[in-house]
Order: sequence, then C-alpha cells, then structure tokens
Amino acid sequence: MASTKRAVVLLSGGLDSATALAICQEAGYEAYAISFRYGQRHAVELAAAAAIARARRVARHVVVDIDLRPFGGSALTADDIPVPKHGDVAEIGAGIPVTYVPARNTIFLSLALGWAETLDTGDLFVGVNAVDYSGYPDCRPEYIEAYQAMARLATRASVLGERPVTIHAPLIHFTKAEIIRRGVELGVDYSLTTSCYDPDADGRACGRCDSCLLRQRGFADAGVSDPTRYVVS
Amino acid sequence: MASTKRAVVLLSGGLDSATALAICQEAGYEAYAISFRYGQRHAVELAAAAAIARARRVARHVVVDIDLRPFGGSALTADDIPVPKHGDVAEIGAGIPVTYVPARNTIFLSLALGWAETLDTGDLFVGVNAVDYSGYPDCRPEYIEAYQAMARLATRASVLGERPVTIHAPLIHFTKAEIIRRGVELGVDYSLTTSCYDPDADGRACGRCDSCLLRQRGFADAGVSDPTRYVVS
Repeated sequence: MASTKRAVVLLSGGLDSATALAICQEAGYEAYAISFRYGQRHAVELAAAAAIARARRVARHVVVDIDLRPFGGSALTADDIPVPKHGDVAEIGAGIPVTYVPARNTIFLSLALGWAETLDTGDLFVGVNAVDYSGYPDCRPEYIEAYQAMARLATRASVLGERPVTIHAPLIHFTKAEIIRRGVELGVDYSLTTSCYDPDADGRACGRCDSCLLRQRGFADAGVSDPTRYVVS
Repeated sequence: MASTKRAVVLLSGGLDSATALAICQEAGYEAYAISFRYGQRHAVELAAAAAIARARRVARHVVVDIDLRPFGGSALTADDIPVPKHGDVAEIGAGIPVTYVPARNTIFLSLALGWAETLDTGDLFVGVNAVDYSGYPDCRPEYIEAYQAMARLATRASVLGERPVTIHAPLIHFTKAEIIRRGVELGVDYSLTTSCYDPDADGRACGRCDSCLLRQRGFADAGVSDPTRYVVS
C-alpha cells in the first residue's frame, strides 16, 4: 500500500510547535493539527495556530475546547496571578515557572491520542523542549517515554498489535537557536508564530516575559532576524 | 498535621464510580468528584453523578466540558452508529465494544490529574474494572500502572518529591456482584446510579444494552434487588 502516513501534531501557535509540524511533514507524514482553547489569556495563539495550519497546508486543523479555569492554579489561566516579567533572560528562575499549567501536556497529548486513534494512526508529534523549558516536568524526555509506554497500553490498536503509539518529540534536545535554524531550513514562516505569554490586544508581544526573552535570544543566537512584532523593543 | 487527605474521584454517574467514591471516603479521604460532559448521548448520567455527589456529601463536584464529537469513532458520541442490543449477557462479544470511546480513560484521568495538582493531592480514585469490561484496553491493571508511572513524572509535586501520584483502582479485580455487595455495605444508594448506554428521555434504562445486562446480572449474582427503572423488564 502506498497510502499516506498520517500523524497528529500538537499545534500551539508558538515557534516550537510550528517547527515540529514542519519536521513531521518533512518526514513524509500527512499532518493533522490539533489546538486547544483552554481558557488561556493568550488566545491570540489560536489565531496563530490557524494561520500556521493554513500556511503549512495541513490535512485538517481542529480546535478542542477544554475549560481548565475551574481548576485554577496557573498564571496562564487564572486572572488574578500576574505573568512574571524580567529585564533579561538570566533572571528567569531555575524552578518550575508560575506559568506552569497543571498536567497540561498530559491533557493535550491525551486528547491528541484520542483523535489519532479515530484517524487510524499512532504517530503524534509534539514540540516539547527540555533545554529552555527544563522547569516544566512534562517537557522532559523521561516524561515523554513514560507517556508513550502508557499510550501503548491505552488504545484499541495497540492492544490488537496493529499500531503502537509513538510520541515524536523531535525538538526535545534542541536549543532555541537550533530549533529556529531547522525551521528556517524547512521554510517555517516564524512571523506567523507567537510566543508571548502576555500579548496586547493587537497580538503584539510584550518582549519581557520568559517566553519572549527566550525567543529573542534564540533568534539572536541563530543569527536569524526576529520577525516578531513587539510592544517594547 | 491532622489535615484531611484529599482525593479526586472520577464520577460517571454509574454503579462502579459511585462505589469507588464510597471506598475512597471509607479510606478517610475528603472526596473531590469530577465528571465530564463529552458529547455523550447518555447525558442523563451527569444528573446521576450530581445526585450521587450530593448524597455522598463530597467536598466539591465539578463537571468539565470536553467535546470529543469532532473526533467521531464511537457509538457513545457519534449519532450515526447504533448502540448494540442483546437479548442476553452471553451474546456480548469478547472483543473491544463498539461503544469504546477513543482514549477516554486517558483523557479523563489527565483532567483529573490536573485538578488533583491544584488541590495539592496526588490521590486519584477511578472505578475501572477489568472483569466485566475486559474489552476496554484502558480498564486493565497494566494500563493503570503505566498511567501512574507517567503521572509520577508529569507533575510539579512529583518532580519535587512532595507528592507521588497514586491511581487507586479499588474495583479493578472485582466482579460486578462483588462491587454491588461492597457498595451496599458502604451505604451506596444504587437507585441514584445509571448504567444504560441508551436510556429514554425519562432516564429509564433500556434493559438490553451490554451495560444494562451486566448490571442486571450483577444485582442477581449479588442477591440484591435491582433498583433500576427499566423501559422493558
């Protein structure tokens, strides 16, 4: 059979997931992109995800609604916790950021797994990265491996031995600069992506949150001009 | 510290999860119940979950909205696949039922894990059962163990060594009759629970789907009178 291999790609609208999508397509997969509306303040990222999905001509893009706000507990979803701002990337703490969303990657991967099963594929791509986001437990290689082991027991096709689940995390050991260089090679249009945790109403990045600082440093280190529109320069 | 131990309990409105809730409370936990509105046809089970949560005086009951219908692929959520009906429990096939929802327990446990994290607990109770539902991959002991191993790497508290996640599946090796006997000992009011995959508008059970047949046999085997209201007797 010469049928196209399908893969589900978690697409946040950020730089990393846009690159993971390009890598998935480069590997010959027909990409099915999934994004989540989870009560995030930075809903501008969903518009970015849609623009990236169109530009990359994915087979389908779905946005799944999950309202995590009743749970509370994170700056990204709770209105009463301010997003931390820093003057420099060196100020970013080594611990787990306050912007951590409880069990977020576990929840997102699980919904992606459900969709993958109905699409008759076991291949999932996720742009997690253990280098710049080492404070997030669910971005580490050992977490991804354990998730894959669980998922291989969770689905009908894996029980029947037809289609073991594979969680592809192609960026996990990349620096931000390496991610950007690889994406540029694959033709990713980073002007469509958004990283800021606290963009303004026009979608312009704050330039001062952890995510903006890491992004700026990544473009600088990669020697690629940063196409991001910032409120402050 | 004499503070109360908290636990998150997955509460579907069915017989099994109501019993798991009672076992959780018997073990001394303050129970936080979570239910899901996931596009299921049998939304009457959410009313049952609320009634059970009230009767058992849980600390809090949340209903999380997840719309899995865009994924398709299951009789419980897709409108165009009929629920299979049988005349007798012996007709139920040994394979994976058509009523299987892709990655359902993985999705539900993941949302419960997120809530547990914000509640500062690692204890989750789920009423999965490997005896009557052996066709469901995500009801098997090896799946639950793999989920727990993954979850212990997924959350902030587990990384910090504060609170390893424990997935309690107290019913996993029970027959339906054993579940009912244990629940009766603990004062579970099974008239509040619902099992039917295809209830009528008044919430009466069809008496013929796999779930009804297993429930009827369970009450008969337990020697307990079945409080269910059926359309057909």
